[in-house]
Amino acid sequence: MDASYRRAGTGSGSAPRSVEDIYKDYRSRRSAILRALTHDVEEFYALCDPEKENLCLYGYANEAWEVALPAEEVPTELPEPALGINFARDGMNRGDWLALVAVHSDSWLVSVAFYYAARLNRSDRKRLFGMMNDLPTVFEVVSSGVKQSKERDRSGTDNGGRNKLSVKVTRTHRCFYHIFYCHVMMLNLICLSSKQASHD
Amino acid sequence: MDASYRRAGTGSGSAPRSVEDIYKDYRSRRSAILRALTHDVEEFYALCDPEKENLCLYGYANEAWEVALPAEEVPTELPEPALGINFARDGMNRGDWLALVAVHSDSWLVSVAFYYAARLNRSDRKRLFGMMNDLPTVFEVVSSGVKQSKERDRSGTDNGGRNKLSVKVTRTHRCFYHIFYCHVMMLNLICLSSKQASHD
Repeated sequence: MDASYRRAGTGSGSAPRSVEDIYKDYRSRRSAILRALTHDVEEFYALCDPEKENLCLYGYANEAWEVALPAEEVPTELPEPALGINFARDGMNRGDWLALVAVHSDSWLVSVAFYYAARLNRSDRKRLFGMMNDLPTVFEVVSSGVKQSKERDRSGTDNGGRNKLSVKVTRTHRCFYHIFYCHVMMLNLICLSSKQASHD
Repeated sequence: MDASYRRAGTGSGSAPRSVEDIYKDYRSRRSAILRALTHDVEEFYALCDPEKENLCLYGYANEAWEVALPAEEVPTELPEPALGINFARDGMNRGDWLALVAVHSDSWLVSVAFYYAARLNRSDRKRLFGMMNDLPTVFEVVSSGVKQSKERDRSGTDNGGRNKLSVKVTRTHRCFYHIFYCHVMMLNLICLSSKQASHD
């Protein structure tokens, strides 16, 4: 299947227009990304090889996910997800890297939904956001998984050596600063998320 | 000033964390982009030269706007705006091109806000969205200006020959299909927006 078709369409080839259609598109793309970052995480991790070119994580309206090169045509038909997620993979703790991809994915999902929502009036945008916000974010799902995994680690379960901090950096300008920034930011995010969870 | 600093920061160099800070960041970036697409539109148009490399429209937290090359480092610190808006400039009606940039900018503004909002819980995200949604979108402001301008044109005012449809396409694969898609989509958007306005 042609990738740009899958990126832009709902499967039927036309852009979603109503609140319900945009929500359905959002939910399907979100499910796809959630599967990549949880159930299919080993496959996702392997595909994000830092030796390859800039890669993005796409979630499609048919609930499929794909690690792929960015769209060739610019400006694109739709907002594009974060570029080059693979370059950060080996420079961060695995859980932090997944959290970073999750946060970028949430941001992308909301940008696609509100790109389609340009046609909607204020009250319909509010209704759409309410429906989207009733679902947990990808980051919330992924970081709760990370928390559980860290708890397992503390209780002595082998983590397969995957959470080691490696600073292998293969490309990109100013990457060291960036990895450091991401790492600190993600640690903050995870700490805050834990605090919020304990307050709930 | 270093561009990545301006892209990422609030002016103080740290990412906004509270609902109020994220809203303030959103409002400032939105004001910057609105100025580029309305008051400073001649300057913005001239900067988006299709002969140049991929360009993006950035709105910063200090209310400055910039047409600039995309961030060099990937994955970026923040979601990036639509790439290569300059390539579409001369292939579309000027009003439609501005509407396209406006829709992409709204999508980018919301993606930046919800990137920062990863730390927030559901009720704070809802509150943030409510505050953001109380402002008209960039597309609503720009398309209402386009409508007024079209009304002036119909009443015989000279438009300076700028709204001519030129199909000069200088780059990008599948650009002709893309321009056609954008054009049709934007006409739909503008018709729907006019209909909504007449229903309000």
